Amino acid sequence: MVVVIKKNTDEEQLNNLKEWLKSFGVDIHESHGEYETVLGLIGDTSHIDTDLLSSLSIIESVTRISEPFKAANRKFHPDDTVIEVAGLKIGGGNFQYIAGPCSVESEEQITYIAKEVKKAGAAFLRGGAFKPRTSPYAFQGMRAEGLRLLEEAKEQTGMPIVTEIMDISHLELFENVDVIQVGARNMQNFELLKELGHTNKPILLKRGLAATIQELLMSAEYIMAGGNDKVILCERGIRTFETYTRNTMDISAIALLKEKTHLPVIADPSHAAGFSRLVKPLALAATAAGADGIMIEVHNDPAHALCDGPQALTPEQFSDVVSDCNSIRDILNK
Amino acid sequence: MVVVIKKNTDEEQLNNLKEWLKSFGVDIHESHGEYETVLGLIGDTSHIDTDLLSSLSIIESVTRISEPFKAANRKFHPDDTVIEVAGLKIGGGNFQYIAGPCSVESEEQITYIAKEVKKAGAAFLRGGAFKPRTSPYAFQGMRAEGLRLLEEAKEQTGMPIVTEIMDISHLELFENVDVIQVGARNMQNFELLKELGHTNKPILLKRGLAATIQELLMSAEYIMAGGNDKVILCERGIRTFETYTRNTMDISAIALLKEKTHLPVIADPSHAAGFSRLVKPLALAATAAGADGIMIEVHNDPAHALCDGPQALTPEQFSDVVSDCNSIRDILNK
Amino acid sequence: MVVVIKKNTDEEQLNNLKEWLKSFGVDIHESHGEYETVLGLIGDTSHIDTDLLSSLSIIESVTRISEPFKAANRKFHPDDTVIEVAGLKIGGGNFQYIAGPCSVESEEQITYIAKEVKKAGAAFLRGGAFKPRTSPYAFQGMRAEGLRLLEEAKEQTGMPIVTEIMDISHLELFENVDVIQVGARNMQNFELLKELGHTNKPILLKRGLAATIQELLMSAEYIMAGGNDKVILCERGIRTFETYTRNTMDISAIALLKEKTHLPVIADPSHAAGFSRLVKPLALAATAAGADGIMIEVHNDPAHALCDGPQALTPEQFSDVVSDCNSIRDILNK
Amino acid sequence: MVVVIKKNTDEEQLNNLKEWLKSFGVDIHESHGEYETVLGLIGDTSHIDTDLLSSLSIIESVTRISEPFKAANRKFHPDDTVIEVAGLKIGGGNFQYIAGPCSVESEEQITYIAKEVKKAGAAFLRGGAFKPRTSPYAFQGMRAEGLRLLEEAKEQTGMPIVTEIMDISHLELFENVDVIQVGARNMQNFELLKELGHTNKPILLKRGLAATIQELLMSAEYIMAGGNDKVILCERGIRTFETYTRNTMDISAIALLKEKTHLPVIADPSHAAGFSRLVKPLALAATAAGADGIMIEVHNDPAHALCDGPQALTPEQFSDVVSDCNSIRDILNK
Repeated sequence: MVVVIKKNTDEEQLNNLKEWLKSFGVDIHESHGEYETVLGLIGDTSHIDTDLLSSLSIIESVTRISEPFKAANRKFHPDDTVIEVAGLKIGGGNFQYIAGPCSVESEEQITYIAKEVKKAGAAFLRGGAFKPRTSPYAFQGMRAEGLRLLEEAKEQTGMPIVTEIMDISHLELFENVDVIQVGARNMQNFELLKELGHTNKPILLKRGLAATIQELLMSAEYIMAGGNDKVILCERGIRTFETYTRNTMDISAIALLKEKTHLPVIADPSHAAGFSRLVKPLALAATAAGADGIMIEVHNDPAHALCDGPQALTPEQFSDVVSDCNSIRDILNK
Repeated sequence: MVVVIKKNTDEEQLNNLKEWLKSFGVDIHESHGEYETVLGLIGDTSHIDTDLLSSLSIIESVTRISEPFKAANRKFHPDDTVIEVAGLKIGGGNFQYIAGPCSVESEEQITYIAKEVKKAGAAFLRGGAFKPRTSPYAFQGMRAEGLRLLEEAKEQTGMPIVTEIMDISHLELFENVDVIQVGARNMQNFELLKELGHTNKPILLKRGLAATIQELLMSAEYIMAGGNDKVILCERGIRTFETYTRNTMDISAIALLKEKTHLPVIADPSHAAGFSRLVKPLALAATAAGADGIMIEVHNDPAHALCDGPQALTPEQFSDVVSDCNSIRDILNK
Repeated sequence: MVVVIKKNTDEEQLNNLKEWLKSFGVDIHESHGEYETVLGLIGDTSHIDTDLLSSLSIIESVTRISEPFKAANRKFHPDDTVIEVAGLKIGGGNFQYIAGPCSVESEEQITYIAKEVKKAGAAFLRGGAFKPRTSPYAFQGMRAEGLRLLEEAKEQTGMPIVTEIMDISHLELFENVDVIQVGARNMQNFELLKELGHTNKPILLKRGLAATIQELLMSAEYIMAGGNDKVILCERGIRTFETYTRNTMDISAIALLKEKTHLPVIADPSHAAGFSRLVKPLALAATAAGADGIMIEVHNDPAHALCDGPQALTPEQFSDVVSDCNSIRDILNK
Repeated sequence: MVVVIKKNTDEEQLNNLKEWLKSFGVDIHESHGEYETVLGLIGDTSHIDTDLLSSLSIIESVTRISEPFKAANRKFHPDDTVIEVAGLKIGGGNFQYIAGPCSVESEEQITYIAKEVKKAGAAFLRGGAFKPRTSPYAFQGMRAEGLRLLEEAKEQTGMPIVTEIMDISHLELFENVDVIQVGARNMQNFELLKELGHTNKPILLKRGLAATIQELLMSAEYIMAGGNDKVILCERGIRTFETYTRNTMDISAIALLKEKTHLPVIADPSHAAGFSRLVKPLALAATAAGADGIMIEVHNDPAHALCDGPQALTPEQFSDVVSDCNSIRDILNK
């Protein structure tokens, strides 16, 4: 960590600061320039609060050089983490498809789709039971009943299920859920993250709309600090000024996360785009960029759906995406 | 709401869509252009899910014309909402100062600051007991004990207290809290918002880092839809590409919110800036832009604080801000 | 275009507005709701200034439904534009590699790299002669002399050259340049765009750091409106809040541009990332998303370069990227 | 400047790098940590290209500690720059109003408005002759004829004129212009900035839509490096995700610029908001935040304008803004 001290700083204040910094067990290298004094902190600085530090009036700037995440950091854990769920592996060269409808709507719907996406190559079944909606007037999901229907579909197909949790108090309902998803809006719901750190379920952690890559890793760190190191990261688009797309998929984040962390990284092209016709190019791009898996919304038989459907693919379209992603994987693995 | 249908859309799909839209009780005005068909929906469209709609493959674009928020909308409630807490009013021309430390640290600290800020003109005491921190390794607040110390300070000064809630399960601890704050990271924690809608406490709702003005109002709507219309909105800076400041205070949002909603709107210049030396200019600017109050971090006696302090003002500096903000209020009210 | 008029608007003002709108030759469909009046404009609205319109005090909102770009619009020109340069085609299924150093530094350097990238599969040679630099103290390029060296390399290798123009007054120096590049910072240098519209050279137009997809297309429209329809669009990353990468490559923009326009679309992964180690995953991702070409910085023999080099690949690494991109193209074309 | 070198870096590469860095005349302090080596560069680093540096493969990160702008830097020039134009001063406690129409439309219009805004308190007349427009189909301004009309208005009122330049080749037309404006889209048109650095006219430099505060200062530096230190900076809103406003006025930038530079800083609330009804609150806010002046669009007699007018105020409304801004100035100066 490099701390730049303003010119003309009172000697006593500077000494107080140095004492405080040393109390964290770091060594301080001090250099005096014409316009500022620079303190280089060597050692483990992860417990020093840079927000507090940079707000002190004698300080010009604070730059963290060591990354503040440790458990998630590839520097300290060079080998890929491989997460195993019901005999299926993700990470470390193992690529998986997670597919299913946006929301669980009925037993018929979810088991039908489960069977179709399994046939097309999906390993995991996804489906929303608790739905985070911007408007209180919009459908909020089937909630506990939706979870029950997902379990039903799991029983019929053998597919492990992935679904979103919205509040700690619902945790006991998730006993038979295989992978618990934390949505983008809850990425910094720290109380929830802490609680999930005390479970032993794999957690699929989605990047928040305005979360930096580092903040995503710090949220993973929250879960891991509690003892649960089975975290799967998910890029699903960030918020930018562009309005033609709902979100902007940060394709670099996938490659960069693979470098910074040993955790598996997947992509959710359905939410990143907001248009079903962009799902295929984004899924291919994410695979080409090195993702460990793809999560895609697949909807019901079009004949039964409203018009011909939500921002999801048909099972046939999904099957086509799987086929091309597999070919791209072959190129990367050759 | 205006829905643009793609050229060459199948007649049957279009009819299905129109039937579905009519089921919400709206009238449809249809115009056929050379390259698209335009449906104008007249009536109450607040229950129509535009996300779902715009994801349909026959649709080119969906534009909401009526705002999706109703309870919070000034169109339907032209008069300013005035919220009264312990005899103190905010909104409708009543301007208030909310001040106190970032975190509650000890009984001595909180009661000392409470007395100082009261003397300087603050009506409400703020202080963090539960602290949302990006890093799991950072201090997480004194939690329940912090709430107890706030109550102590309230007893000694008579100041109503404002403090942040981080999880529904803590709600019972907030019985003696006068105004419950929802932090920026929880602005779309919908389960929490719903629960707060069933209390009768005033809620201070902070805008999320990447939340649009409309999303902030929709989150207020969640609380109001539950029956609690005592919501105070707070602009505290949004995330942009600028790196010299921690966040970018959206000063237009203050003026615009006052126009769009009848709810009180305050500003938090301490978090918007991230530097104590920007707090005064931002507090003055927010007041000049029409805010109904200012929330400011004020810290302990500098002699006892680390170096000379966090991103907070001293009581003397706070007193100076109050004085100039009051003068600006006089200009606006003349 | 849909124009929403405020409630309680004076009849005369509304009539004035409607007369003015009709003067553009559009038909007006009017619907009266409880809280607003909606005008639907049918016909060619591309000459109506929405900025002016939305600033009128009687107007609540203006929504363009037809896109404001015409010459660049795929709706009106469904077939892909294929641009031919020195016998090489780009667009319409023809994929090309543009490669070369960031800056031209010497004859030896540029001809060496030209030969290397040609061997590795590049069709076009790129190299900066005029360099846009944030700091006036940074190297500004070899300018006219750099152009001469590029021409030399072209003569020796037969590769057409692509290089950036920074001001209209330099245009005559670009006579032997095959493709003129407009950099991100000049994407809305409208006087320059107009002038380039009067040449018959292909223009490689880079997206501005904060330009929307629509603005990029409007800038292409400036060139095309002058009579030059040989425009190649280039996604090179946009500015967001993320700080781990220099820019955020907008991968969706590639797929979306291919849908909205008939012009060729290429990607520049070197500038999007800002790190040489992200160039390969981004190049593969852009190819998978449907780009018509890739522009990559390739640097000199590492032994002669500073340390082991700038944000560019070695010729060997470039060759590896070409090989994998070609394999991805085969999957897309199968 | 602090340069972090990756672990396991080859000794020879590191030595090459250090030699190269020393060639800029800086001293290097080296510290070796467990996971990285940190180089602290002491001395004048403004000529070192951080982009080049951070792209080297052996480097983990580069952090500039000294700001890269020198001529514009308050550290080296603590006293406020006061710019004098036709006897009017701006900066150093001198506050000015710049007002006039968006575009010059006719002699009658511009002289009428000039007289009105002068009466209301404006010192400078603004008006667009060359207009940067997103669409090639929109009105591009009266150009040279517009400049002639501005000169006419200047003659009749004695007000110095401020108008935008769009290309170097127009410079000779600006001989009688008192302050040359560089628009947001040309903030990084470096060839234009260099040329303006060789004039002795005051330059009003607007911040680009996606320009950081540092980039704005670097563009000022371009002008100053040429010998012209009469630069007025202008905050006019940045591009963010918010869509209710056209741009987001960065109010902190005003206070921060006043701290970082000695140059005068003004605000343009008309363009920041995009709504005339936000102009007053933003003008007051900018004044309260410490701006040295305000630039406002004021339009013609409403009776002659289309409906009741563009995003500009009437002379009466402008007069009201001037009055309240003056009162706020009195508070700040007391």
